[in-house]
Amino acid sequence: MLPYKSLIQVDRNTPVTLHIQVCNSFIVLITNGTLQPSDVLPSSRMLAELIGINRNTVKLAYEELISQGWAESVERKGVFVLSGLPIQPKIKLPETNKNSRSQEAFIWTNQFENSVPGDNFQHTVLTIDDGFPDVRLAPIDPLMREYRSLSRKFFGKNFLKYGSSRGSEHLRHSISNYLSNTRGLVVPVEDMLITKGSQMGIYLAAQLLLQPADYIAVGTSNYCFADDTFRYSGANLLRIPVDGNGMDVNYLEDILKHKKIRAVYTIPHHHFPTTVTMSMERRLKLLNLAKEYRFAVIEDDYDFDFHYDNKPYLPLASIDHNHNVIYIGSISKTFAPALRVGFMTGPPAFIEAASSLRQLIDKQGDTLLEEAFAVMYDNGEMERHFRKSLKIYKQRRNLFCQLLKSDFEGIIEFKVPEGGLGVWSNFDQSIDLIKMSENALKKGLYIGNGNFYKNESFSTNALRMGFASMEENEMTAALGILKTILR
Amino acid sequence: MLPYKSLIQVDRNTPVTLHIQVCNSFIVLITNGTLQPSDVLPSSRMLAELIGINRNTVKLAYEELISQGWAESVERKGVFVLSGLPIQPKIKLPETNKNSRSQEAFIWTNQFENSVPGDNFQHTVLTIDDGFPDVRLAPIDPLMREYRSLSRKFFGKNFLKYGSSRGSEHLRHSISNYLSNTRGLVVPVEDMLITKGSQMGIYLAAQLLLQPADYIAVGTSNYCFADDTFRYSGANLLRIPVDGNGMDVNYLEDILKHKKIRAVYTIPHHHFPTTVTMSMERRLKLLNLAKEYRFAVIEDDYDFDFHYDNKPYLPLASIDHNHNVIYIGSISKTFAPALRVGFMTGPPAFIEAASSLRQLIDKQGDTLLEEAFAVMYDNGEMERHFRKSLKIYKQRRNLFCQLLKSDFEGIIEFKVPEGGLGVWSNFDQSIDLIKMSENALKKGLYIGNGNFYKNESFSTNALRMGFASMEENEMTAALGILKTILR
Repeated sequence: MLPYKSLIQVDRNTPVTLHIQVCNSFIVLITNGTLQPSDVLPSSRMLAELIGINRNTVKLAYEELISQGWAESVERKGVFVLSGLPIQPKIKLPETNKNSRSQEAFIWTNQFENSVPGDNFQHTVLTIDDGFPDVRLAPIDPLMREYRSLSRKFFGKNFLKYGSSRGSEHLRHSISNYLSNTRGLVVPVEDMLITKGSQMGIYLAAQLLLQPADYIAVGTSNYCFADDTFRYSGANLLRIPVDGNGMDVNYLEDILKHKKIRAVYTIPHHHFPTTVTMSMERRLKLLNLAKEYRFAVIEDDYDFDFHYDNKPYLPLASIDHNHNVIYIGSISKTFAPALRVGFMTGPPAFIEAASSLRQLIDKQGDTLLEEAFAVMYDNGEMERHFRKSLKIYKQRRNLFCQLLKSDFEGIIEFKVPEGGLGVWSNFDQSIDLIKMSENALKKGLYIGNGNFYKNESFSTNALRMGFASMEENEMTAALGILKTILR
Repeated sequence: MLPYKSLIQVDRNTPVTLHIQVCNSFIVLITNGTLQPSDVLPSSRMLAELIGINRNTVKLAYEELISQGWAESVERKGVFVLSGLPIQPKIKLPETNKNSRSQEAFIWTNQFENSVPGDNFQHTVLTIDDGFPDVRLAPIDPLMREYRSLSRKFFGKNFLKYGSSRGSEHLRHSISNYLSNTRGLVVPVEDMLITKGSQMGIYLAAQLLLQPADYIAVGTSNYCFADDTFRYSGANLLRIPVDGNGMDVNYLEDILKHKKIRAVYTIPHHHFPTTVTMSMERRLKLLNLAKEYRFAVIEDDYDFDFHYDNKPYLPLASIDHNHNVIYIGSISKTFAPALRVGFMTGPPAFIEAASSLRQLIDKQGDTLLEEAFAVMYDNGEMERHFRKSLKIYKQRRNLFCQLLKSDFEGIIEFKVPEGGLGVWSNFDQSIDLIKMSENALKKGLYIGNGNFYKNESFSTNALRMGFASMEENEMTAALGILKTILR
């Protein structure tokens, strides 16, 4: 007899009745070949004793097995596995052998074999991230208050049903107003799509614009998940140098003369990772080139809301009178990264296609959350949050840069950023960032090793160091640890 | 002089200061060519009067324009648009001409030109949907309580930061337990990915499994957004007949003998739309074929939690000892459609690749919400919700079928479904469903017209009629309206 005591285990602390648990266990034994067609099952008395349950429970389990067509009862002989079942030969313990699981039972091409997952920042270790907001400042409570209050209302409950893949119309209104007020960008509500953070905007744009072997121009240094997204579309990346005035559009122009480019991806306001801002001359020239050569400009403006000294230039989208720009923004960056809400605007037909693709990807967003955000815009809560965090981030930037200057002279070179949440820090060549990162972790500080910013044409010994998510005491502690390692 | 009174409008009820608003307006006029290089700007006194603001505000706006490099001040002559600006020739009012916007400024291929958006159900009209849960039953309040309570905790705030693209580990644990308890499906936490509803599982599987011109087998009738997703991957659909015992696997076997198929998409438990359940014989045969011909089985099990009479068969995944099955499920369907949380399991390398692709699509889910769901599983709240709604849905099914039988004899033919949230209703050929749907709406009832279920090989005069989302009085009202239309 099979070792039923170990093969069939029941758990009294689950919602599933015991007899169904026993029945399910037998099905697994039958289908994995441990029990073969025509095998006899143990008597209900014996099994009940073995696994310590009531005999009637076993009887119920057998009845269920029989009614489901797995077994048959033969009078005065017992219960047997059905003889006609098309069962495969016995497999030897496949579940416990981890290796056999990774052998592929079906044929597919793994395009992601060497892909590197993004870091998980949901730990409590002291962290110098690469420029994230401080989630402790996010007004989650007011947001949830609106969420609950909406969910209790007759009309509010409707936002829990299937809705539009474009996202909440209310939130599109609120963001449209906000864009118009803050950056002179007039977007009709129907030309906007609510996304899951700016990453979804990049993905949708890439999928719609790029066919395999198409060219897209990106910065020599660039946001690596954007690069990966374009590569996933099958496109070739053309690297355009980025200097102190942003992307070198003259270099781009030379390429355009002999190569068809489908799109240019750019982060004119605080380029990622180096934080430079594109000059107004280059912005105008880029738009003129886009018009002449009929390519799309994907403008990733994740950072517009953060500026401390001067007012920022208007986005390309605001002065794009020929409609070449697909404009992508995010609330996640200003609120909390794990609350994935962003937006995307562009020509009407393009936004319509993006909504159709989005429908295939995940149908729609969390409309009730989107509605709650819309209320937060309308009642000024978002505005208060922006103002408050901007003031705090400015103080943190000042302190951070002051500490970098006083304690890391000759080791770290940087420019005080006018906006954004990170400092582009060039480390002296003698410093091994990988070792530094490892040593820091041993002392309780998480800091990147710079690999995230490197690509086939960019390998500066540098890091983006985020200052916004640390309070004063955390900042001094973090930089204190770094100092002991580097000195 | 230009009609500045209409060209420059200011809004005192926005967070942006007036002088920035004026400055931004001028930038737009300069970049769209309304103002040309070397043009003179109106005097501050004149403009202040024209648009009704303080003269000093205009002065500030001009200073901003100058500092941003758009204009220059010439002593005793006034402020001029900078002469060296690379401005394009004037465009005639492009913003107001809707048609010019839809002409494409850049080259792209619209694959979604004829795509049909899913219905928006976020209205308050009396509705017979195609089998959705009643969102009024969803325990949103306890969920939000957990969400807020987590967000106030030191460790809880971390879930607002960037995290894993696989989703909350806690929720993966909870769902893993739940799958093990309810359907004997043992899934290691690392082989699970939290998705945005089952649609994202379908999309990820399609993208990873299918290359252009690959074949995927699907039911003759099928969930149309799954069909669209496979087509978007470039795959060809092979239609397999579905009868009262589910997908005809013998038909599939014949095809396999002369055609390579990469994957089979199936909904063995309550096939969509016809609600039939696949027989155990066919399930075993399908798995054997998958093993022999090395194709993947995408098992969409959106409906497992709803069964009223017998216990359902175990999913294919539970008896898939060769690991051919990619198993997709959803919490959205049991809770609230707009709360997009689902899961996907499969071979480890496959789930890892799916997580990498998911990272490019939207980075990650709302981890704090996922944590809150996990707590709801752990503290039994989800279980209570399932039990409660199952009881209510059973009553509603019974009443709905009783009304269908008594009031629509000879018009609607149907079988009482053992589970699920909808009744597959075959209408008499004399009934024009499109007209019916239009007439119903005039009387205040939304009901589909059947087009959603049709495809190039399936065109039955039938509808899925959802009973779960209507309370008793709504149900009698809805069917009452339908009756007056059809009789």
